[in-house]
Amino acid sequence: MDAREVLYTTRAMRRVKSDPIPMDIQERIMDAAVRAPSGGNAQNWRFMLVDDPAVIAQIGPIYRAAMTLLWGSVYAERVAAAEADPESPDSKAFLRVQKSAQWLADNFEKVPLYLFGFTQNDTSGSSIYPALWSAQLAARVEGIGASLTQVLAFQHDDVLNILGIPTDEGWYMAGCVSLGYPTGKWGVASRQQAHEVSFRNQWGSPLGFETPEPLWP
Amino acid sequence: MDAREVLYTTRAMRRVKSDPIPMDIQERIMDAAVRAPSGGNAQNWRFMLVDDPAVIAQIGPIYRAAMTLLWGSVYAERVAAAEADPESPDSKAFLRVQKSAQWLADNFEKVPLYLFGFTQNDTSGSSIYPALWSAQLAARVEGIGASLTQVLAFQHDDVLNILGIPTDEGWYMAGCVSLGYPTGKWGVASRQQAHEVSFRNQWGSPLGFETPEPLWP
Repeated sequence: MDAREVLYTTRAMRRVKSDPIPMDIQERIMDAAVRAPSGGNAQNWRFMLVDDPAVIAQIGPIYRAAMTLLWGSVYAERVAAAEADPESPDSKAFLRVQKSAQWLADNFEKVPLYLFGFTQNDTSGSSIYPALWSAQLAARVEGIGASLTQVLAFQHDDVLNILGIPTDEGWYMAGCVSLGYPTGKWGVASRQQAHEVSFRNQWGSPLGFETPEPLWP
Repeated sequence: MDAREVLYTTRAMRRVKSDPIPMDIQERIMDAAVRAPSGGNAQNWRFMLVDDPAVIAQIGPIYRAAMTLLWGSVYAERVAAAEADPESPDSKAFLRVQKSAQWLADNFEKVPLYLFGFTQNDTSGSSIYPALWSAQLAARVEGIGASLTQVLAFQHDDVLNILGIPTDEGWYMAGCVSLGYPTGKWGVASRQQAHEVSFRNQWGSPLGFETPEPLWP
């Protein structure tokens, strides 16, 4: 698959079928993920694939509780704004994300595979998120939808206990990627265009080009 | 270009030529970068392309000073280990990274373009590093080498001052990507293979497959 197509159409794809992901596809996803760079090439990372329904069943309720917390805290303002004016473009965009995220909460146990990423003593995240994003891009190549969630961080210790993470060695959970065959279609995500969020040489100075529409397809 | 080739051959490519990067290529890189996902699709990010030699000349000395600090602090143990036993595989790998990173320090002003990424009130990095990594992958498609550095974080405030970042609004610098036409060749980076750094369902449990060599090419 063309690299630009992959970069443009890999988006949070939470609604997936329960069909299992074949082992050779999992292997290709993981093999691509570990090519990502990390600070000093230290590769202070660990990954965990979780497909055991018994393990997923333990995490599901934690995820749902964390999600409820999230709407009531980090996203409380946006939830209130969306409820106050549900027809505004911002509200519509937020409600779309909320609905999709809530789908994952409600159907956590139906997702066939989760990929957890752990990093050791890395507080910036710069040495683990490129690998997790590569995993999602590699999944896209295979027709697998993926979505990174950090919601479980709200109940970090509970999850680490279930997965047996040696926190005394400095490992922590950077995120969890849900994986599965999508129920919906691939498409280019709507975003603010580069020139709307970028500058050149100085904060506030124009970028030097304007791109009214995505350059792909 | 094939997506898997891009995922496998995009590695820290610090040694680059001074040739400028055409504007249409910069545009394609940035247009791809902003397709990356962010938490709640909030896109709380800003980007800055820096190609003004006067700005780069201000940052160069800061980068060099930060690099010296880095070798003496974060990497002090690895530097000492490499000096004590320079022929071990670990030492050789580290010395290779060190030499490459030092090249960038010594030649900071020769690099034609830098991409800075900023994020607002996001401490995990999960909403900015996917975009910066997408920028590097999109650069690879164009034959442009890239490398993420966070070394400037050591002198965070000085750099933010030079670039005019409104830190009172909660913006901080997540990283800086150097960009340029490489002097060397593209290749698959040597990494620990997935099964050496991954588990299934429980920390310490085998992943379920072993991949002795990279699956690409």
